[in-house]
Amino acid sequence: MSDLTPTLELALDLISRPSVTPEDAGCQEVMISRLQKLGFKIERMPFGEVVNFYAKRGSSGPNLMFAGHTDVVPTGPIERWKVSPFQPKIIDGVLYGRGAADMKGSLAAMITAVEEFVTANPNHDGQISFLITSDEEGPFVDGTTRVVDALIARHEIVDWCIVGEPSSTKTLGDIIKNGRRGSFSGDLTIFGKQGHVAYPHLAINPIHLAAPAIAELSQTVWDDGNEFFPPTSFQVSNIHSGTGATNVVPGTLQAQFNFRFSSELSFELLKARVIGILDSHNLKYDIDWTYNGLPFLTPPGELVDAVTQAIETTVNITPELSTSGGTSDGRFIAKMGTQVVELGPVNATIHQINECVDAQSLNDLSTIYRRVLENLFVK
Amino acid sequence: MSDLTPTLELALDLISRPSVTPEDAGCQEVMISRLQKLGFKIERMPFGEVVNFYAKRGSSGPNLMFAGHTDVVPTGPIERWKVSPFQPKIIDGVLYGRGAADMKGSLAAMITAVEEFVTANPNHDGQISFLITSDEEGPFVDGTTRVVDALIARHEIVDWCIVGEPSSTKTLGDIIKNGRRGSFSGDLTIFGKQGHVAYPHLAINPIHLAAPAIAELSQTVWDDGNEFFPPTSFQVSNIHSGTGATNVVPGTLQAQFNFRFSSELSFELLKARVIGILDSHNLKYDIDWTYNGLPFLTPPGELVDAVTQAIETTVNITPELSTSGGTSDGRFIAKMGTQVVELGPVNATIHQINECVDAQSLNDLSTIYRRVLENLFVK
Repeated sequence: MSDLTPTLELALDLISRPSVTPEDAGCQEVMISRLQKLGFKIERMPFGEVVNFYAKRGSSGPNLMFAGHTDVVPTGPIERWKVSPFQPKIIDGVLYGRGAADMKGSLAAMITAVEEFVTANPNHDGQISFLITSDEEGPFVDGTTRVVDALIARHEIVDWCIVGEPSSTKTLGDIIKNGRRGSFSGDLTIFGKQGHVAYPHLAINPIHLAAPAIAELSQTVWDDGNEFFPPTSFQVSNIHSGTGATNVVPGTLQAQFNFRFSSELSFELLKARVIGILDSHNLKYDIDWTYNGLPFLTPPGELVDAVTQAIETTVNITPELSTSGGTSDGRFIAKMGTQVVELGPVNATIHQINECVDAQSLNDLSTIYRRVLENLFVK
Repeated sequence: MSDLTPTLELALDLISRPSVTPEDAGCQEVMISRLQKLGFKIERMPFGEVVNFYAKRGSSGPNLMFAGHTDVVPTGPIERWKVSPFQPKIIDGVLYGRGAADMKGSLAAMITAVEEFVTANPNHDGQISFLITSDEEGPFVDGTTRVVDALIARHEIVDWCIVGEPSSTKTLGDIIKNGRRGSFSGDLTIFGKQGHVAYPHLAINPIHLAAPAIAELSQTVWDDGNEFFPPTSFQVSNIHSGTGATNVVPGTLQAQFNFRFSSELSFELLKARVIGILDSHNLKYDIDWTYNGLPFLTPPGELVDAVTQAIETTVNITPELSTSGGTSDGRFIAKMGTQVVELGPVNATIHQINECVDAQSLNDLSTIYRRVLENLFVK
């Protein structure tokens, strides 16, 4: 017999299934069978090659959703791992395996938290739900965003959501993400006229045209952020122009840029300001825009308070609220008007060789999730 | 029997030799044997894989040098030529073949001009010389510059030089080049710090650092040129930065730039101004400099007058003096304190498929070259 906790047993089971995006490798069915036993109503919602499910227990009162993903990023060179990435092992109290931190450990903790809570409170107030996808690490087209659209279409209300993303940086619970910046990219082409450097009057150098515009864009203060968001940030990630020859003036310049923007601003507003700056430099240009997501923010309130208190009680830490970092599926869920926070284990090794997580922290995470349920539903 | 002129016969012979840089394919020996018959003293001066020769007739008085190259640029796709590029043909009075304009036509005209002149004036004043290389279209390391160094080392004096580069634009003699701008390049690396666009405070974006500096460099007025030179020109020919990913701030930026500068400025002066501008932007950077050549200028005087008069007499055109266009071997010859002009046929098709030249213009060019000799040496 194993002396592992139910959380760690389930985490090991999930990690052993090689569910590289968009594969699920049976993880969702494992979760579904556990939830069915607790009386959850299951809706499988596959889109394209992506499997997703929505599960709910209870029919009235506020709805707390646990959200997450069963897919993981590729392993990288397997020979560089200390354990086979899909044969997880606990070594000296540390659980190694692809998805240990991002985010099968969190999924296991959610399931066991709900099992304990429902067993102790079979007639709990409110509704508990799960939204699980296998497309968070991939193109995020057929995953959470599609399920959310379906829920919105039928006027499903989700009041609160905990996304199990690994939010912690040094120790479990030190950081909870109560929002994320918005994100969009632009693919800019500036048109000049190719020629020979010896005949500059016959050429129009797009590098010379672009430089002052990019200088102005990169020096612009877009906003000052606010209490919860750092200032909006603009970064040019790629710039390319030139034929390779040193004596040719190139005909075009390509640049890609990315905005991470606060809740003070919108995609439309920033787009208009970028276009205004480019136009003021009299450029001939094209831009392809890619919109990655709205900013969202969950200010202190019922959900943040319940989570903060659960963390304090379990691991004796007062979490810091943060909106930093990359995008997550929280941006899609927030579209429902849901209060969203992200809370999961330490993210130091995610997407890396030897991804790992402190084993005990998953047990603690299960306790924290259970206490959030208690704080919200047991008065 | 052919009814071709000696100039066209020799041009056809030279073009039929496939002398793609650094090959000479026997061209120089053809020229040498003609010059030897006229009493020229020949010095073969091979360097590396490049053949060159210096030839001289006469031992006192001013030295007029004819300079040129036997090498040609590659043909490009042969199937796109209307004649095989090394099987030259005259079609409707136009001579087709690789090197017809750049510059085997000029070489043939130089030889026949000197043959006529020497036959008519066997005891001419002054000295006539040839400096011929097979490395003008290539790296120009072992060609004219090495021969010039050898001539300088032994204090050889060359007063005047006609380079046979195709200087004409619409009709033979419309333009003579009486100078060329100087040229140098810089290969600039700007150092930042790679990072994720979501964490801009941890990265230093070299594109953002470079943009204002490149803007300033590209907007700087370096000089106003002068009577003979257009203003100094700065062009960025290549710029590259970025990992390809849209969410990564790159660590470095590479840019290549080129100066074409007037006789008002020097390499050292411009280098110092570039460094001053980069330093004023507080950049961390490296630059590799490549110096391609000094500017040179031959103001109106004995040589320009002799050439102008020869053109007027032969084709009834008054040539325009110009210093525009790319570099040529004239820059190396000018180091000897020589007055240098470039005069050759129409350059419209050089380096192209179906390179060609008006056949009669080569006969006229031979006459012009001969009349320059007469103007300078027959009082």
